[in-house]
Amino acid sequence: MPRQPFIVGRPVLVVVDMQTGGGMLAEDVGIDVMPGHSDRVRRCELLVRAARDRDIPVVFFQEVHRPSGIDFGRELDGAEGVHCVEGVAGTELEPSLRPLDTEFHIVKRRYSGFIGTDFEIVLRGLGASTLILVGGLTDVCVHYTFADAHQRDFYVRVVADCVGGSSLARHEAALDAMEYLQAGAICDSAAVLCAFDSQSRTTLTEGTVR
Amino acid sequence: MPRQPFIVGRPVLVVVDMQTGGGMLAEDVGIDVMPGHSDRVRRCELLVRAARDRDIPVVFFQEVHRPSGIDFGRELDGAEGVHCVEGVAGTELEPSLRPLDTEFHIVKRRYSGFIGTDFEIVLRGLGASTLILVGGLTDVCVHYTFADAHQRDFYVRVVADCVGGSSLARHEAALDAMEYLQAGAICDSAAVLCAFDSQSRTTLTEGTVR
Amino acid sequence: MPRQPFIVGRPVLVVVDMQTGGGMLAEDVGIDVMPGHSDRVRRCELLVRAARDRDIPVVFFQEVHRPSGIDFGRELDGAEGVHCVEGVAGTELEPSLRPLDTEFHIVKRRYSGFIGTDFEIVLRGLGASTLILVGGLTDVCVHYTFADAHQRDFYVRVVADCVGGSSLARHEAALDAMEYLQAGAICDSAAVLCAFDSQSRTTLTEGTVR
Amino acid sequence: MPRQPFIVGRPVLVVVDMQTGGGMLAEDVGIDVMPGHSDRVRRCELLVRAARDRDIPVVFFQEVHRPSGIDFGRELDGAEGVHCVEGVAGTELEPSLRPLDTEFHIVKRRYSGFIGTDFEIVLRGLGASTLILVGGLTDVCVHYTFADAHQRDFYVRVVADCVGGSSLARHEAALDAMEYLQAGAICDSAAVLCAFDSQSRTTLTEGTVR
Repeated sequence: MPRQPFIVGRPVLVVVDMQTGGGMLAEDVGIDVMPGHSDRVRRCELLVRAARDRDIPVVFFQEVHRPSGIDFGRELDGAEGVHCVEGVAGTELEPSLRPLDTEFHIVKRRYSGFIGTDFEIVLRGLGASTLILVGGLTDVCVHYTFADAHQRDFYVRVVADCVGGSSLARHEAALDAMEYLQAGAICDSAAVLCAFDSQSRTTLTEGTVR
Repeated sequence: MPRQPFIVGRPVLVVVDMQTGGGMLAEDVGIDVMPGHSDRVRRCELLVRAARDRDIPVVFFQEVHRPSGIDFGRELDGAEGVHCVEGVAGTELEPSLRPLDTEFHIVKRRYSGFIGTDFEIVLRGLGASTLILVGGLTDVCVHYTFADAHQRDFYVRVVADCVGGSSLARHEAALDAMEYLQAGAICDSAAVLCAFDSQSRTTLTEGTVR
Repeated sequence: MPRQPFIVGRPVLVVVDMQTGGGMLAEDVGIDVMPGHSDRVRRCELLVRAARDRDIPVVFFQEVHRPSGIDFGRELDGAEGVHCVEGVAGTELEPSLRPLDTEFHIVKRRYSGFIGTDFEIVLRGLGASTLILVGGLTDVCVHYTFADAHQRDFYVRVVADCVGGSSLARHEAALDAMEYLQAGAICDSAAVLCAFDSQSRTTLTEGTVR
Repeated sequence: MPRQPFIVGRPVLVVVDMQTGGGMLAEDVGIDVMPGHSDRVRRCELLVRAARDRDIPVVFFQEVHRPSGIDFGRELDGAEGVHCVEGVAGTELEPSLRPLDTEFHIVKRRYSGFIGTDFEIVLRGLGASTLILVGGLTDVCVHYTFADAHQRDFYVRVVADCVGGSSLARHEAALDAMEYLQAGAICDSAAVLCAFDSQSRTTLTEGTVR
């Protein structure tokens, strides 16, 4: 039973690492992803379109590592191989999920969108208080971005049919972990479309930038 | 198959939130914990003693919230009730797991030991590069401290028989998630005791503070 | 010509490092301070009392270093000697400038109040947007706390007759630097008392915690 | 009298905001700069060339704000007008001070290079411990980057004849403030060239990435 409204204050749609590698073979892009990438892309498109129709800001994250490997940190010590290298096939954003000139494109070097980026600067500028996450991996970049947002007092929602994990089991475990943090955080794209519909433009512009 | 040695550079033993509430009823302390708290305390004591014998630094975290509730952030929006309030029974550190005057006691307001604390200042001062985590909850404070340490380039190990989760299923899912990040991260207390034994004092003092 | 109102949204009074060492000899406490410490203490008392009368939150910072010296970082590479050691005379807060149980006492290891502390957690909990700084040193802890607050989008004010520098010249240079960042930031205690007077309790409680 | 060697461990040359606006009129680019920009550019070129000859890493910062103004924070509340807008004349890096493909180009939204960027990730990857700062403004981006580096335990040096302030007085006050933090921090380009000369490639590669 959720203890907070679905959207509190001003929402932002956050598209996490929707890169073409999500639909490629792990042996080619270094990371295993559960099936269904192209379906998730299609559903994310619907959410992005709905957000744009309502002037809800959209942030597009892209994980990119320099070719020298200098910024991988400990990311190659675990299950993932070399991944998301600048200029390599699979690293580019999905063609249908790219920012307009007025939207936000943030390159990151770590899983969490809060580490080593200007995400917090953008969120403060927007006066955002609810983050709606889609993309991948559910159990890595989505989960750790959620945890960081939660620990910085944001309301966070995850669209279960728009996120994919490194495996189905890890996807489900991560959804469960996020629901533990904020009851009602896990939702589906239909619920988000409905919530966006009920956000009048007036309401949104009242959530002003301080 | 671990890709890195068990201990790289200078190790630090990190005791996460070993508070007396871990052995109390959830209805009294706000948080469910899987059975076995007192056994975990006993095993943690062995590790702390071994660390002290080898001059390996020990950090004791304690989650504490001000009675006004001002610093809970979103922590009451999920599965946990009011918890770890200053001055309330269950918040104090386990009597057998408290810092010596020369050790480190760090109060935190969030799950991750890196948020809102001087943990990084201490770790830099110590020249630490491997963190060995014990305590709880496996799937909350331990997991998110691990993720933050990992994303700050530390080598991190979790002692599976010295950490407890909010449920057995979540405990196991969190261990799996951490092993995904660093292969070989999940170990048991016997392995740590053995590794500490093979650390000569000479080796340790060579890992100098810069 | 200030471009913003003197107080925007909810104010917080921030007392920076008003420790007894400010009135002692540099050769004893490691840090030079320009004359006038006891006068500044007296004026700070007036502001603290006025804040309490209006339910304006007060944060008391205290710089403290562990006796081992582990957390000094590079602080001994410059003009300052060993300073603010835990348990040593000069480190304790001025007796007349100590937090009530309902106020905030934050120990810090660095100059900026934002580094290695839970200050941001507290400020978010309070819904604070304007910080009013008093204490010392104008050119070190006050200046760098100001710069960090400014870069995190807070409105910041400095009470010139309630802050003291490492020298009069550095005090004045730091005030000039802060005025460069936010026009109208530099004020005096009379102006703050007047502004507090015009804050009705109603206004303040409207600046609610989200 | 400096208490530390001029270069400790692995050095990095950091070129702060050497953008063409530094040589333009304040009424056109929003920021006053003291005379001598083109001379500073020329001297910076010498340092960059010397660093490249020795395989010393070079980081090029560029302050850029989105045209919507969303990420200015409080930067327009003080002495500076609208500045460093993406795509506007004056925002681009000086043509002679641009990164090679193997070097580091970091866009920032705030004064300090540590806020909202991946600078710390890069510095850890490089195993850097001494930062040598050139560029501008001495009293804003250079000073606050210095303060943040200092508070994160880096050794920091500022090349006085390669940095320019918002005025000569503020330039000098900022140099004095940085020398207060680390004795011997203020140097000139001749000293840096000499120090680079005495760094053998062997020494440098010994300062390895952990």
